[in-house]
Amino acid sequence: MEFKIDGTCGNARACIIKTDHSEIKTPIFMPVGTAAAVKSLDAIDMMEILNTNIILANTYHLYLRPGDEVIKNLGGLHNFSGYKRSFLTDSGGFQAFSLGNNVKFSDEGIEFKSHIDGSRHFFTPEKVIDIEYNLNSDIMMVLDDLIPLPNTKERIKKSIQRTTNWAYRSLVHHINKGKKNNLFAIIQGGTDFEFRRISAESLVSLEYKGYSFDGFAIGGLSVGEENQLMYDTIEVTTPYMPKDKPRYLMGVGTPEDIIEAIDRGVDMFDCVMPTRNARNGYLFTSFGTLRIKNARYKLDDNPVDSSCECYTCKNFSRAYLNHLFKAKELTYFRLASIHNLHYYLTLVKEAREAILEGKFKEFKKEFYSKRS
Amino acid sequence: MEFKIDGTCGNARACIIKTDHSEIKTPIFMPVGTAAAVKSLDAIDMMEILNTNIILANTYHLYLRPGDEVIKNLGGLHNFSGYKRSFLTDSGGFQAFSLGNNVKFSDEGIEFKSHIDGSRHFFTPEKVIDIEYNLNSDIMMVLDDLIPLPNTKERIKKSIQRTTNWAYRSLVHHINKGKKNNLFAIIQGGTDFEFRRISAESLVSLEYKGYSFDGFAIGGLSVGEENQLMYDTIEVTTPYMPKDKPRYLMGVGTPEDIIEAIDRGVDMFDCVMPTRNARNGYLFTSFGTLRIKNARYKLDDNPVDSSCECYTCKNFSRAYLNHLFKAKELTYFRLASIHNLHYYLTLVKEAREAILEGKFKEFKKEFYSKRS
Ligand SMILES: [Zn+2]
Ligand SMILES: [Zn+2]
Repeated sequence: MEFKIDGTCGNARACIIKTDHSEIKTPIFMPVGTAAAVKSLDAIDMMEILNTNIILANTYHLYLRPGDEVIKNLGGLHNFSGYKRSFLTDSGGFQAFSLGNNVKFSDEGIEFKSHIDGSRHFFTPEKVIDIEYNLNSDIMMVLDDLIPLPNTKERIKKSIQRTTNWAYRSLVHHINKGKKNNLFAIIQGGTDFEFRRISAESLVSLEYKGYSFDGFAIGGLSVGEENQLMYDTIEVTTPYMPKDKPRYLMGVGTPEDIIEAIDRGVDMFDCVMPTRNARNGYLFTSFGTLRIKNARYKLDDNPVDSSCECYTCKNFSRAYLNHLFKAKELTYFRLASIHNLHYYLTLVKEAREAILEGKFKEFKKEFYSKRS
Repeated sequence: MEFKIDGTCGNARACIIKTDHSEIKTPIFMPVGTAAAVKSLDAIDMMEILNTNIILANTYHLYLRPGDEVIKNLGGLHNFSGYKRSFLTDSGGFQAFSLGNNVKFSDEGIEFKSHIDGSRHFFTPEKVIDIEYNLNSDIMMVLDDLIPLPNTKERIKKSIQRTTNWAYRSLVHHINKGKKNNLFAIIQGGTDFEFRRISAESLVSLEYKGYSFDGFAIGGLSVGEENQLMYDTIEVTTPYMPKDKPRYLMGVGTPEDIIEAIDRGVDMFDCVMPTRNARNGYLFTSFGTLRIKNARYKLDDNPVDSSCECYTCKNFSRAYLNHLFKAKELTYFRLASIHNLHYYLTLVKEAREAILEGKFKEFKKEFYSKRS
């Protein structure tokens, strides 16, 4: 992986990440393709209609179905899904924790029952990496130790230590395997600033045979804490993350969250919000969120957002989308998902341009003023 | 509407129908777009990916939701849906009969309760035409009198008479309105050859101020009767239909049904089968039907049909579709619908080529031999 900083503005950064499959300009939003498909969209939609250069896929889901061996057999995620650009895969730990049954954590790994068929499985840091090799993702996340919050200081401390141990085991396994996929570690510590510092510093200091991680992520946020506390936690964490490597904030968030995190030095984002909200009838626009089922759109021949240049806005009206949503027509889900993803992708693209022009503060101010 | 016969082969015909919105080469299959959207597809899919020149929309559904006045307000079906080519609308009678509640037939029309909200409605032949004007369909079907089968000879006779009366009222209303939309009458009579002859002859003979219908349809078939009886009924009916006007077989059917009906002189078809079967996991191919969820496709990197040139077959494998179907990913429905519609559209296109080359019998023989 190549990494280069094109420009900065305050703490905000505009970088380029080059993997074997694509060149990614940051700040970047990565659409979530849980089961090797971004919900209601296909690979051509992602490449030709949305022009995304990286998407996320879920290790837990793909391990269970169709199985990582199946995907390996079919040439990895790129060949299987037809999406030829970059994939980032999460570690599966979060889904094992939240979707699996009878989850048991030990120093060795995470034991859980499949939410699909109840079969028993055991994730270790090494096993997760092997699964991600089978998927052949460009960026592989390490297994981390997740705990329900709020929790005792002692348990959070234990979680950080275990996360660091597992990250080290992942690094050792990966370097010994000699594979080219990139490996990212995940900083934990809840909203405790001291724990975040410790977690970041210990992960950043890990080395094996002269190698360290290719990038670092902030995990465990956007789990119900106040927005400002999340922003503050990001703000105290990013200074401990290397300048010369990508910084990824996992599972976040609203357009506001993304702008605030960019302002605090984050480069990469993923979230189910644009696609999930689309399916539920909430469409993002520069002037705020629009609820498409609202009766006021029944006769509205305008596009969702007249300043939006997406496929949906170029071809279809609010009235037609209002009708499709109410009639539960499947094509609604695709059209709404395209619009919302286009909104997120355009937001980070414009943020990048503002950073390169040294006008990120003005950009942020205008972003908020349009929405009020 | 312009109509021209390009060639014949036995009873099979290759014609051209020209409406204000497109040129339709027959035999033609019209995808069903119940709620002004072919299920899981949008207008761009229909025009650019499938290149269809005519689709069907359902008067009953659109009258109830979003309402024909809404669609009129938004510039008719073409502007509302973005599909700029031809629309054929059914009369709504069949859906009022099959989906509505408390359906009451009288000489005046059909009274029914909406399946959506239970509201009461009354369809008369004139009202249906007015709804179709609001939709601004290129080809409007008249309201016909449907009866449950089997039924008494007396009731079938009454249905035919009423269908003719309603067709005449429709014609009078339409000619007096002076609108350019085209009007098709519907021949009824179940599988009784004599009733079919009477129904066809009486509809064909109807005239008002020198005008008659722009085309004729065969309705009321494919409702559970034996295939051969359906083919025989078509065979005895088409000779009573004018040679210089389009002949449309409503709601039929399997690829075999379509080939048999073309061989008996039918020009136009519609059916929910390609899209419905796609959603249920049944994919049409030149060698028969393939059930995508079958475990044998789990590792199959081939396209659904290696001789198929559709968007789905060009970009995705059986293994990926098998996975998407099992994971209930919405994009599966679009990809499968595209393939199945492409199959139907290619089938009628190849039938047309065979007719023009005078080789329809050979084409039909090969069609069957590939599937056995
Ligand atoms: Zn848009
Ligand atoms: Zn195909």
